[in-house]
Amino acid sequence: MSITFPQGFRAAGIAAGLKSSGAADLALVVSDGPLDVAAAVFTANRVQAAPVQWSRQAVADGRARAVILNSGGANACTGPDGFADTHRTAEHVGALLELSAQDVLVCSTGLIGERLPMDALLGGALTARDALEGGASAGADAARAIMTTDTVEKTATATTPSGARVGGMAKGAGMLAPQLATMLVVLTTDAVVDAATADEALRSATSTTFDRVDSDACMSTNDTVILLASGASGVETTAEELTDALRQVSSELARSLVADAEGASHDVHVVVTGAGTEGAALAVAREIARSNLVKAAIFGNDPNWGRIVAAAGCVPESVAPFDPARLGVRVNGVQVCRDGGAHEDRSTVDMTPRETLIEVDLGAGTAKGDIWTNDLTHDYVEENSAYSS
Amino acid sequence: MSITFPQGFRAAGIAAGLKSSGAADLALVVSDGPLDVAAAVFTANRVQAAPVQWSRQAVADGRARAVILNSGGANACTGPDGFADTHRTAEHVGALLELSAQDVLVCSTGLIGERLPMDALLGGALTARDALEGGASAGADAARAIMTTDTVEKTATATTPSGARVGGMAKGAGMLAPQLATMLVVLTTDAVVDAATADEALRSATSTTFDRVDSDACMSTNDTVILLASGASGVETTAEELTDALRQVSSELARSLVADAEGASHDVHVVVTGAGTEGAALAVAREIARSNLVKAAIFGNDPNWGRIVAAAGCVPESVAPFDPARLGVRVNGVQVCRDGGAHEDRSTVDMTPRETLIEVDLGAGTAKGDIWTNDLTHDYVEENSAYSS
Repeated sequence: MSITFPQGFRAAGIAAGLKSSGAADLALVVSDGPLDVAAAVFTANRVQAAPVQWSRQAVADGRARAVILNSGGANACTGPDGFADTHRTAEHVGALLELSAQDVLVCSTGLIGERLPMDALLGGALTARDALEGGASAGADAARAIMTTDTVEKTATATTPSGARVGGMAKGAGMLAPQLATMLVVLTTDAVVDAATADEALRSATSTTFDRVDSDACMSTNDTVILLASGASGVETTAEELTDALRQVSSELARSLVADAEGASHDVHVVVTGAGTEGAALAVAREIARSNLVKAAIFGNDPNWGRIVAAAGCVPESVAPFDPARLGVRVNGVQVCRDGGAHEDRSTVDMTPRETLIEVDLGAGTAKGDIWTNDLTHDYVEENSAYSS
Repeated sequence: MSITFPQGFRAAGIAAGLKSSGAADLALVVSDGPLDVAAAVFTANRVQAAPVQWSRQAVADGRARAVILNSGGANACTGPDGFADTHRTAEHVGALLELSAQDVLVCSTGLIGERLPMDALLGGALTARDALEGGASAGADAARAIMTTDTVEKTATATTPSGARVGGMAKGAGMLAPQLATMLVVLTTDAVVDAATADEALRSATSTTFDRVDSDACMSTNDTVILLASGASGVETTAEELTDALRQVSSELARSLVADAEGASHDVHVVVTGAGTEGAALAVAREIARSNLVKAAIFGNDPNWGRIVAAAGCVPESVAPFDPARLGVRVNGVQVCRDGGAHEDRSTVDMTPRETLIEVDLGAGTAKGDIWTNDLTHDYVEENSAYSS
């Protein structure tokens, strides 16, 4: 189902010829209203692709009706000409749908620094427009068209207690993904909601889901998460209900991004407890999740707590106050480190499951935070060194 | 030559049985004065090995006469017992040399979380004491005894214009090095210098040499750089002369650390120019040097400027103000990116030399800064996943 699960949405996914493989590479999502509410969050990278620059300003008024997404080219670092290409795409799709270009958001993913083949893209937009429909297969087609190195399409749905629906699709193959693992997500809902509430709910939901995935510490120029609200269910949800449903869908999609990191052999959940603040817990969790030595050890099925403790020690005390002599570490349930030193025999840790749980207790408070990452593998190196050559 | 190049020093490197291979694993360096001036810099990791804790307090008075260094065990995360082991080592070496334990500095490198075999270590200290001599071969023996995954011993020497000598030895195999790539360095000089000048000169020299090596962003629990000054030449150098000679030796040793990263196939020099401040230049250089996607691309001989620009964009504007649309990137001399977009054909870049030069112009000022790193390779993953299992 995915993005067509809520009422008031049509979608399409087609092959426009952007990918040399001939695979689907263009997706179109349209909200038929009655509402045209929209919200979005974008990459914090200062080098922002043309579609990010466009969509950021287009959604600033809290309104949008359509999203066009292409794989096969990021349209990043393409200068004013690249921005003109995005603008022209929005104008063209707007004309096809009888919308203002300002109500058309654009997402792109692929190689940085190359112009898009505009004839193929604009021709594909027409094909996609003609293929728009509201059924389940249309949602799946759209989810497939935004895949790059993803092996499966990623979709999720949820329903609020009051009966409004939320659907979502995502692309991004975690740490393996070449070209900075661009993450593109479209969420849809038929709840009746105003722009301010939609924006707040989206930011809250992404902050504890997509923002907690840190597969290789590399932030894309194109990351985008868009929410469209059609209002077609007529159901007025509370902000909390909507946030919960968005969080449920986002969490499922985020987890599927980690699970589809083909280059990875483990999905690693780093959970830090006993922190003074959530920010401190997240800083420590992120440092551990970004340590190449920790990640390589996990690939080798080695519960190397020394590297985990050492990574924690790299976080400045001003960011996360704790006493290194009180650190505790559990790996897959075995307390391999207690009070900063060796405890249970690490040879008893079973590292064979794909999911690895690293629990670190800072012994400095009651706050906690978690990050999902992957291990560092030969396949990661292979796929990220061979991609563009 | 190395540490015995200046007058007034003796050294030894012997096999104490700490390494199961039977290779040399214990080094002893002694200053015979007349001065007993010393200075040191240590890891910024908050998880500090017992020898770091000991040496930091022992050198606080600006005085030391001897350094004992062992490979085969880091003595980190070993709690009060581990600290007692280090203390006992210093007491023992002090007794052997008729020195106060406070004048004996200790360095260790190897696996985290395991106690050292103290009988072997203390017995080895006696053997090392009896082997002390001032010749060139003694310096080489000591340099070999601190190697872990290093393939060659690393030594360097320099002479000040006024005739004082500086020598140095280092261990650390760059990014490949398992167990957090611990870097241990001993520098010696026969210049007549006071403790304050020695401390200032050492900090200045290391800040632009060892501090500019960032092979895999992982900071060790044991990193230590020690300077001993014997004063035996009778030559009073200026602070500037001494700093220059220390910087020359440190630079050579730092470069040799990068060159000996066996897991690496490229040594990567990231030079950022056109920054508002040196701090801004270094922040951008470090972010690029730490990007797994940049490093994997270099392994694949791919001058992927898009990943370089995207890494630069991850540095917050408050840290390094620049306009992404003005970024320029040269790889091995070819300007592949200008004004934030594609420029010269990247297929013309020759990536086959081991040394890769990445030059980034921020177009925002006149300051510059550089970082040395290595590429991300299959061997890095292999050696860091298989080491302790």
